[in-house]
Amino acid sequence: MSGCAIPDFLKFQESCQASLHTKLTEILSPKPTSALYQAMSYSVLNGGKRLRGMLVYASGEALNAPRPELDIAACAVEMIHAFSLIHDDLPAMDDDNLRRGKPTCHIAFDEATAILAGDALQTLAFQILSQNNSPYFKADIRLKMLEALSIASGADGMAGGQQIDVHATGKKLSLSELQHMHHLKTGRLISASVELGYLAAGREDNTVRSALLDYAEKIGLAFQIQDDILDLTSQEGTLGKTVQKDLRQNKATYPLLLGLDEAKNQAKAAYDAAIASLEPLGKAADTLKAIAHYIVCRDR
Amino acid sequence: MSGCAIPDFLKFQESCQASLHTKLTEILSPKPTSALYQAMSYSVLNGGKRLRGMLVYASGEALNAPRPELDIAACAVEMIHAFSLIHDDLPAMDDDNLRRGKPTCHIAFDEATAILAGDALQTLAFQILSQNNSPYFKADIRLKMLEALSIASGADGMAGGQQIDVHATGKKLSLSELQHMHHLKTGRLISASVELGYLAAGREDNTVRSALLDYAEKIGLAFQIQDDILDLTSQEGTLGKTVQKDLRQNKATYPLLLGLDEAKNQAKAAYDAAIASLEPLGKAADTLKAIAHYIVCRDR
Repeated sequence: MSGCAIPDFLKFQESCQASLHTKLTEILSPKPTSALYQAMSYSVLNGGKRLRGMLVYASGEALNAPRPELDIAACAVEMIHAFSLIHDDLPAMDDDNLRRGKPTCHIAFDEATAILAGDALQTLAFQILSQNNSPYFKADIRLKMLEALSIASGADGMAGGQQIDVHATGKKLSLSELQHMHHLKTGRLISASVELGYLAAGREDNTVRSALLDYAEKIGLAFQIQDDILDLTSQEGTLGKTVQKDLRQNKATYPLLLGLDEAKNQAKAAYDAAIASLEPLGKAADTLKAIAHYIVCRDR
Repeated sequence: MSGCAIPDFLKFQESCQASLHTKLTEILSPKPTSALYQAMSYSVLNGGKRLRGMLVYASGEALNAPRPELDIAACAVEMIHAFSLIHDDLPAMDDDNLRRGKPTCHIAFDEATAILAGDALQTLAFQILSQNNSPYFKADIRLKMLEALSIASGADGMAGGQQIDVHATGKKLSLSELQHMHHLKTGRLISASVELGYLAAGREDNTVRSALLDYAEKIGLAFQIQDDILDLTSQEGTLGKTVQKDLRQNKATYPLLLGLDEAKNQAKAAYDAAIASLEPLGKAADTLKAIAHYIVCRDR
């Protein structure tokens, strides 16, 4: 799984990052002097891989979805992700000081501002999806996007997964409990990102939808195994966040439960299954395949 | 402004409270054993005046909106309100132990669970509005509801107001700053409640909409002045939350800035203006008038 620096993929990632930066800056610009807006911007514009945004663009572009719809959906997904990171980093949760090589939101601002910035980023994600701000706006499609994104973010998704994770410290989850936790905490939002791209295209094709959701589930698993491997094996300067935190917090991880080699094998197996899932899309899925490859060979 | 116990109003309030309790219980029932769902239920089913829910029902019923749509909108508004109370009560915010006479969410559960329960209640509010679960479902109307509710809840509404409030301790806001803070923190959600009732009716009538929004703005002001008066003059057992907290936190309030008598005068003036705003609705606005009356004569 070496050779991550595929030029076409890097170009795609840079283009997604640039689009997201422009759109998110535009959306967050009205109140540059408010500390709340500053904290929201600080967190959502703080670089990042933009994996979820890339998945919206890549799945949507595979089906010829209109770009303005993908921009809105990708911004919404990245806002939800940024909100979750702000709250996960809080002292009452993972209590982390470092995120993407910079102070976390509650360190750079204060705890109350961080809680509210997270709250307001969540709200803004749903707000931009509800607004008629694209020439391709179709009410029924937007509602389906809102439904998919809200279900993925809430008590049966991301928030539910974080609730399990934050209360699992020292409890050593079993492998199936670990998978369930990650499926909720990370997997559901990854799947929603792919689904929003699919919905933006306005096509109803159950074969394609199933293929995409199957792909999303597999890369979600690969992503999490790789995350655990990186936490164990990376240098802090490379990863941009605190390393070996799982070990210190006595948390179950894939390498701990499976051994490092078997964890790597399972990441590779999930990658292979993700690629196989995309078969019905043919050549149109090349970017999605490159994202899957990136997920298992990234070093941060 | 005496004589709060108007039998018809009390009957209406009880009926709204019962409907909300039934619907919210139904929505939150799938996972009774999860601590996160328990914390969400604990907070959103913890009694309360249901002012915002009542406003949805009363404005909608004044325009013959279908009941199932009002149920969904009222539940969404009450979820947003409950979410905001959970987060406002957190140690990093208002640090309050008592809410409606019971331990606040982070005391009854823990801080991480309270943060996530607030997050997930916000998500759930948008989720139920996005779902096609009513025979009267119209996608464009639901999107307008989602837009109105999200704008009212976010950085330019409730979260923005709380950001000002939590950082204003000891700073003594001026009267206009105080009004602006309350307009964002409380007023916007009260207005959105009325607007959701209006939207549920599916009528486009700008005279009626303006009348309702004008009414909402005035009762929002009356509500906040009365809240400050109650904080100053009530007994904890009656109010169900910590009293004279504003004084101890050295916060600006209407009675402090205006004197108690003038604050009472201004609450009465806001009430009168609210009643006058409803003129275009005639008899249909009787319940809305009763709510305005309740707001200025309530003792908790």
